[in-house]
Amino acid sequence: MSDKLNELKIRLAEVDDLSSAAAVLGWDQQTYMPAGGAEARGRQMATLQRLAHEKFTDEQIGYLLEELQQAGADWAYDSDEAALLRVTQRQYTQAIRIPSDFVAEVASHGAAAFNAWTTARPANDFAAVRPLLEKTLELSLRYASYFPGHAEPIDPFIDNADHGMNAATVGALFDQLRAALVPLVQAIGAQPLADDEVLRRGYPEAAQIAFGEEMARQLGYDFSRGRQDKTYHPFATKFSINDVRITTRLDEHFLNEGLFGTIHEVGHAMYEQGVAQALEATPLASGTSAGVHESQSRLWENLVGRSRRFWEHFFPVLQAAFPTQLNDVSLDTFYRAINRVEPSLIRVEADEVTYNLHVMLRFDLERALLKGELAVADLPAAWNGRMESDLGLTPPDDRHGVLQDVHWFDGLLGGGFQGYTLGNVMSAQFFAAAQTAHPEIPDQIRGGSFDTLRGWLTENIYRHGMKFTARELVERATGSPLTIEPYMAYLRHKYGELYGL
Amino acid sequence: MSDKLNELKIRLAEVDDLSSAAAVLGWDQQTYMPAGGAEARGRQMATLQRLAHEKFTDEQIGYLLEELQQAGADWAYDSDEAALLRVTQRQYTQAIRIPSDFVAEVASHGAAAFNAWTTARPANDFAAVRPLLEKTLELSLRYASYFPGHAEPIDPFIDNADHGMNAATVGALFDQLRAALVPLVQAIGAQPLADDEVLRRGYPEAAQIAFGEEMARQLGYDFSRGRQDKTYHPFATKFSINDVRITTRLDEHFLNEGLFGTIHEVGHAMYEQGVAQALEATPLASGTSAGVHESQSRLWENLVGRSRRFWEHFFPVLQAAFPTQLNDVSLDTFYRAINRVEPSLIRVEADEVTYNLHVMLRFDLERALLKGELAVADLPAAWNGRMESDLGLTPPDDRHGVLQDVHWFDGLLGGGFQGYTLGNVMSAQFFAAAQTAHPEIPDQIRGGSFDTLRGWLTENIYRHGMKFTARELVERATGSPLTIEPYMAYLRHKYGELYGL
Repeated sequence: MSDKLNELKIRLAEVDDLSSAAAVLGWDQQTYMPAGGAEARGRQMATLQRLAHEKFTDEQIGYLLEELQQAGADWAYDSDEAALLRVTQRQYTQAIRIPSDFVAEVASHGAAAFNAWTTARPANDFAAVRPLLEKTLELSLRYASYFPGHAEPIDPFIDNADHGMNAATVGALFDQLRAALVPLVQAIGAQPLADDEVLRRGYPEAAQIAFGEEMARQLGYDFSRGRQDKTYHPFATKFSINDVRITTRLDEHFLNEGLFGTIHEVGHAMYEQGVAQALEATPLASGTSAGVHESQSRLWENLVGRSRRFWEHFFPVLQAAFPTQLNDVSLDTFYRAINRVEPSLIRVEADEVTYNLHVMLRFDLERALLKGELAVADLPAAWNGRMESDLGLTPPDDRHGVLQDVHWFDGLLGGGFQGYTLGNVMSAQFFAAAQTAHPEIPDQIRGGSFDTLRGWLTENIYRHGMKFTARELVERATGSPLTIEPYMAYLRHKYGELYGL
Repeated sequence: MSDKLNELKIRLAEVDDLSSAAAVLGWDQQTYMPAGGAEARGRQMATLQRLAHEKFTDEQIGYLLEELQQAGADWAYDSDEAALLRVTQRQYTQAIRIPSDFVAEVASHGAAAFNAWTTARPANDFAAVRPLLEKTLELSLRYASYFPGHAEPIDPFIDNADHGMNAATVGALFDQLRAALVPLVQAIGAQPLADDEVLRRGYPEAAQIAFGEEMARQLGYDFSRGRQDKTYHPFATKFSINDVRITTRLDEHFLNEGLFGTIHEVGHAMYEQGVAQALEATPLASGTSAGVHESQSRLWENLVGRSRRFWEHFFPVLQAAFPTQLNDVSLDTFYRAINRVEPSLIRVEADEVTYNLHVMLRFDLERALLKGELAVADLPAAWNGRMESDLGLTPPDDRHGVLQDVHWFDGLLGGGFQGYTLGNVMSAQFFAAAQTAHPEIPDQIRGGSFDTLRGWLTENIYRHGMKFTARELVERATGSPLTIEPYMAYLRHKYGELYGL
């Protein structure tokens, strides 16, 4: 039996080598690659991904899984072995269901739609992308058809991103959240806007990078197993549990970009660095789902990084790095500035409170598109109506509305958004559980110590990698199913205090 | 027929994708990778190289070559098609002769020998590596045995690095060169040593990098299809004709390191950037041989970069970059400093004139080892004797003698050295031919214009990639077989003037 398991692991490591190599090429493409390299790089990455897919869907892997499953009944559910079989079987079944012709068609359509979007967006021309989006919808429905038995077509996408969840559960959670958030946003909107001028005073790039790296180090990101580089669209990427990198983008005229972008990616990266070494080079060796991954970036970014106590420790360090900009600024002014709430048209510029409304709008619209309840032609109007009802704003044009995100124009519908809000909801539930277990955490943060919190996250989340689903992980770590209560309690408390509600 | 050719090209492009991906991973490993990434990186690169080998030795490639060769008799020798078949057939035949077990054994022995060397060298302990070197010799002879029909065992290695050459031709050339060089070195040695204090005045790294990039740009290195990064052991590497990168190492206390290291790698990189775009992603899309490649790095480094006329243009630029260090220095003093000749024990620190003596010593010793005319146990004594006769120096210990280079301790014997001197010899022959065709080149260099020279090299060497062998290329470009005359004429003229011989 251990022979078969070994053979399976060797095959999976080969797949991992190919995917990790593709990730290195992707990292280089977005950090250092000269413009001339683009064409060859596209070809090279496509070859690596194709070979990884071929190797993973080799029928020999199917046989090995079968033989091991028949024999492996005595492996405990929590064991690495049982989890490896469980997760590999799930991914294998999924991979073999998708014809490679279909993958190629999606890739080629995605490239065409992306190209069209890059000119349609500045030209404010929804009509130009409409037929492409209709094709995207058709392809998305075809994808869903490879996974029969779902209640509605978005379910296979949700399951893919956060295994075990579906439209019914996510939709119910989002409905509750929206009902609670809209009044909070309105209440905040009735108060005077916070002033964030102090964040816009001109912060030289090199000093921002140095501060960001110091902050990352103190939070617990291990630079001997990672590094930070500049890029245009920040991301974290993993080539091994021991090589997990972050990238950042800095704006010399708006400090939030670099500060919270860095903490966000550090959150993703510490999750990957914290996976147990025993899982290296297997399908278990990464964060378990889109939602849980986002919960880790958002926990560090928002619950830790946008807290007053965090800046009680770091604000003097930041002042020392930028004395001319910040020496006349109080901690309170700074804290209010970084937590300014203002309903806006653009998702990626939204604050912590309004952000989820942008996400849920998209989720509900793509769900409706996929169910056939909304036509692509009616999408702009539906978008604008929802912006009005949720955020009280009407987009002046589609550029500031339905055309703003790349997500619907470079692949399929259904997989891209809900994880952001699931992550926000989870982040507060995890943080509350950590604080219940270790009531000293807030004081430690105030003192610049993050080990207890990171230790709890490592023990309860990071080390498990993909062994447990998002739902299992939430219940194991917090003792209850996913709920919006801790998240709403966090927002109400924090913003109640900030805006005197 | 064009279907078969297309199928072959698709298969070769896949191999190229895998090798290029491995090259990206290697570049990252030597520039940015954090220490923690090493173990996974080794595994990933090994997987890519293994798959590239598997794909290239697929019997389908053999069949395609056979069918195409039967049908392709009407392709002209100079055509891309004929060259593609010729070179692919040669590489294919070679690749399928080497058992993959043997490759694995060499890799594992190489790692062991390298490890032993890293401790034996500082400990000055030749006895500790002797048995490993004996095993290296045995493996090298086994390698040679896969290529029956050679006159002596080093021939397959030479053929591999510079197809069409062998020990008899290289040995004869080297004997002539040595006979001419030793007296020149002695004559220079009888003169007062040039003073290179001006190179050791402390040159801050950032300004060195900026100057190096400006110089690279003016020489014609295309930064839109390349870039420069720092590393420990400088190299050039190619991921595509349109992504050819250089790396550099700087020494703030010795200017030569960065200056000439940069020009050297620029020479390699301009060769790869200059290959015709039609050859992209085929085996033809790289420099044709070790010797010709080195001829391009050395031509730019020495015949151009260490010439007085080059510095007539660049010395004022260098002075502007380092005014406090260089404003009191004359062009003449600087020119003498960068061309200081001094027999020394260490190859990698050797000057332009004595360098070849180090190389030929190694070539003759490995040739003798492989022929069975020298025992590993007698290697240190043979080394020291030859240092005495050629350079007039006796190594005080093996650390400064036979243990100094990594080459014999990380792979096989026979392939590593001769290309350096072949390249030097070729560089002068190419440069002389370019100058005959364009007598204005020296004046242009003096004026900071390198386009005519680079144009001639592109036309006669770069664009052909691997289409022609080193020998063919030399004869086509210069009208005569490889000869030491232009090289000795260059050295005698330059150093005769410098040292008043």
